[in-house]
Amino acid sequence: MTNKNSFNLLELSKLINTKLIGDGKAIVDNLSTIQDANESSITFISNTKYSKHLKTSKAKAFIVHPNILEEGIEANFLVSEDPYLAYAIASSFFKPNESSRKSESIHPTASISDDIKLGKNVSIGPNVYIGPNCTIGDDSSIKANTSLVSNVHIGKDTHVHNGSVLGSDGFGYAPSPNGYVKIEQLGNLIIGSSVEIGAGCTIDRGAIGDTIIQDGVKLDNQVHIAHNVELGKDSAIAACCAIAGSSVIGNNFRMGGLSGVLGHLSIADNVTVGAHTLITKSISKSGEYIGIMPAQRPKDWAKSSIFIKRRK
Amino acid sequence: MTNKNSFNLLELSKLINTKLIGDGKAIVDNLSTIQDANESSITFISNTKYSKHLKTSKAKAFIVHPNILEEGIEANFLVSEDPYLAYAIASSFFKPNESSRKSESIHPTASISDDIKLGKNVSIGPNVYIGPNCTIGDDSSIKANTSLVSNVHIGKDTHVHNGSVLGSDGFGYAPSPNGYVKIEQLGNLIIGSSVEIGAGCTIDRGAIGDTIIQDGVKLDNQVHIAHNVELGKDSAIAACCAIAGSSVIGNNFRMGGLSGVLGHLSIADNVTVGAHTLITKSISKSGEYIGIMPAQRPKDWAKSSIFIKRRK
Amino acid sequence: MTNKNSFNLLELSKLINTKLIGDGKAIVDNLSTIQDANESSITFISNTKYSKHLKTSKAKAFIVHPNILEEGIEANFLVSEDPYLAYAIASSFFKPNESSRKSESIHPTASISDDIKLGKNVSIGPNVYIGPNCTIGDDSSIKANTSLVSNVHIGKDTHVHNGSVLGSDGFGYAPSPNGYVKIEQLGNLIIGSSVEIGAGCTIDRGAIGDTIIQDGVKLDNQVHIAHNVELGKDSAIAACCAIAGSSVIGNNFRMGGLSGVLGHLSIADNVTVGAHTLITKSISKSGEYIGIMPAQRPKDWAKSSIFIKRRK
Repeated sequence: MTNKNSFNLLELSKLINTKLIGDGKAIVDNLSTIQDANESSITFISNTKYSKHLKTSKAKAFIVHPNILEEGIEANFLVSEDPYLAYAIASSFFKPNESSRKSESIHPTASISDDIKLGKNVSIGPNVYIGPNCTIGDDSSIKANTSLVSNVHIGKDTHVHNGSVLGSDGFGYAPSPNGYVKIEQLGNLIIGSSVEIGAGCTIDRGAIGDTIIQDGVKLDNQVHIAHNVELGKDSAIAACCAIAGSSVIGNNFRMGGLSGVLGHLSIADNVTVGAHTLITKSISKSGEYIGIMPAQRPKDWAKSSIFIKRRK
Repeated sequence: MTNKNSFNLLELSKLINTKLIGDGKAIVDNLSTIQDANESSITFISNTKYSKHLKTSKAKAFIVHPNILEEGIEANFLVSEDPYLAYAIASSFFKPNESSRKSESIHPTASISDDIKLGKNVSIGPNVYIGPNCTIGDDSSIKANTSLVSNVHIGKDTHVHNGSVLGSDGFGYAPSPNGYVKIEQLGNLIIGSSVEIGAGCTIDRGAIGDTIIQDGVKLDNQVHIAHNVELGKDSAIAACCAIAGSSVIGNNFRMGGLSGVLGHLSIADNVTVGAHTLITKSISKSGEYIGIMPAQRPKDWAKSSIFIKRRK
Repeated sequence: MTNKNSFNLLELSKLINTKLIGDGKAIVDNLSTIQDANESSITFISNTKYSKHLKTSKAKAFIVHPNILEEGIEANFLVSEDPYLAYAIASSFFKPNESSRKSESIHPTASISDDIKLGKNVSIGPNVYIGPNCTIGDDSSIKANTSLVSNVHIGKDTHVHNGSVLGSDGFGYAPSPNGYVKIEQLGNLIIGSSVEIGAGCTIDRGAIGDTIIQDGVKLDNQVHIAHNVELGKDSAIAACCAIAGSSVIGNNFRMGGLSGVLGHLSIADNVTVGAHTLITKSISKSGEYIGIMPAQRPKDWAKSSIFIKRRK
């Protein structure tokens, strides 16, 4: 854990909006798991199954829910109704200082089109490629080895992680007697504010019309979003998912890893899709949807497979 | 929509091989969806469910099937038996001029092996890496941040999109008492002409012998093709698919997203595989194959899961 | 096949630890499949179904199992109880000399943090980005267009292929009334020795605590490993798999392509997971687990799908 930040518990409790119980002058200089904590660590308990480590942990202080206090253990506590959120806020204070966030910089190895429009405090990393007709808003960052191909418009405080490709050609071809004819991709990719796009993602620009990623969306690594998709506000998609072309997805959509949504579908707000699941039809009701084939021993799987095919 | 191209309908109707009905002097300067069209847009109707927008659309002209004319609406029409194909052809005339296609250029940040053999009008983008023993044919392009590792031979008018890796080591190891022993990958990756490879794809070169991608193949983003695969002419593979080693796949293969083909299989011509489906056996008959586990509400899925495992 | 290496069979038989039967002075200068062999090829038969090609192959010599000798065919043989392993060892002698392996070099286009700690004979390719707090051990290589984001510690003789992203931010957010709050990722990514990481992979560093990839692990292309995963020694994972956060996986884990493991699970040693399979529960017993939905013709699949949902 490398950081140069240390805090006394009184100031930290205020910074992360928690109630201090214990020694406000005690110093912490790192954020750790409860098992790996040292004498200057602060840690957290967001799941009560970890509370058993409270007595043996070396940590100087614990971010906890009020319930934990009922156990009567003597320690320094920073108490929150939502200790996981308090931990998330605390994490920002233990970030190494060398982070490039919030500092304006365009790396000299980046290749950037002359017509780019940049906000304030934009950071563009090494070997980034930015093609024509792109805009990047204030406080946003594009990490190393990422490509913005063309017509990509990014809002504020949005971060694109390494090796991603945004605004690439959508997969559009018209069959013809002489093979496929490419449909030139003339639209835009519009990405909102406070969006985070993981490493190795691909998001295509629109064919005609636009691909739209609304504010607050979080994509894990290796997610693919096809042309003309609209992805609603505050959606969160886990690794290796794919959303096919022209699907319109509501707010607060969540999807587990290795899952997909077919093209031209409409998905309501507040839908959650399990991991390794494919959505093949439009969904009009919020809630959870799962389509995982159960894993079994080979002999049992072979029998289930025959059962599914024979249907009796 | 950024482009500097405008056409009168008479010239455009000829360029895209359609029959003009209406005002040949009318000018259009952009290609749009029927809903988003403005007064100088041309749009298209390839699906009759969109014909309801005909009366209210602001578009100057419509690419349509002759059937649409029977509705008796007054407008400028470019009529084609295949309006989707006519739209595809039209799209090439509305491409922004700044496109790097068809212009010869090797970006100064590209790192290219001395022994490369290049055709005419090849475009190589920023931060491209090209290792030893590679060939690129006329009018082909390698987009920014792509790697051609070694032994990659690419035909004419073939385009490799951003962040892809071609000719990488295949996944070959022999188990031994001391752990896995790497099998050096000595073969080539041969890619035909008129091929398009999406962003973030990986295609390995052969172990011994070659990986072969035939003419006219179109790969969407994040597709993986393993060593010694042969993929037939005019095949089209959607995003996030994987084909395992040494499988030999016929012409006109199509595969939906998130699907796969196991290794050492043989697949006939004209096979279509659904999305999120795994092909585990060789296929000798053309046609469609699907293996999607249906998505359900969690309670229903849990019951189905038990049913599958109990097989009664 | 490009290489400048030729051997007489006596020396080659010793180099790859096999027994020579035949002409020790015969020269071979390439390693080939049995069908594609020419008059100076050495080839191998690891699967008896290929032994039918023995009589017609042009190869100068054959790496074979002793069983093959019983067929009484006259040829030059290099005999091994494990011909596939002998082939793997032989492959290293037919590698082209231009390989960058084992030669120390940092490409001038690489962007590397000042605080990097490098062992001997490390090779860093073009357009590689290496951020703060990274270590790379002796004889390891980082191929072109790869990013090591921060806090990545790599052992000896470990090779990271093109376009991969290591040490990226894990996917960690705490829900709040104002949308997701990012959890800063403060941990490390620790990768052992003799590890191989394919092209286009993403491996996140720990949130707090570390992501750990043990010695001898082999990852195919486009594999995703989330934060705080521990992956045991000599594990091998095929293309396009994903392992979710905090799962702890034993030694000799194997997983077919397009498969996944959910988060916070514990997997025993010597577990093998089929392709296109999701592991949703911890596994305490070694052995094989499969969860593939069988692929069928559309009509049959539709009936099976209804059967699964109706459960009768």
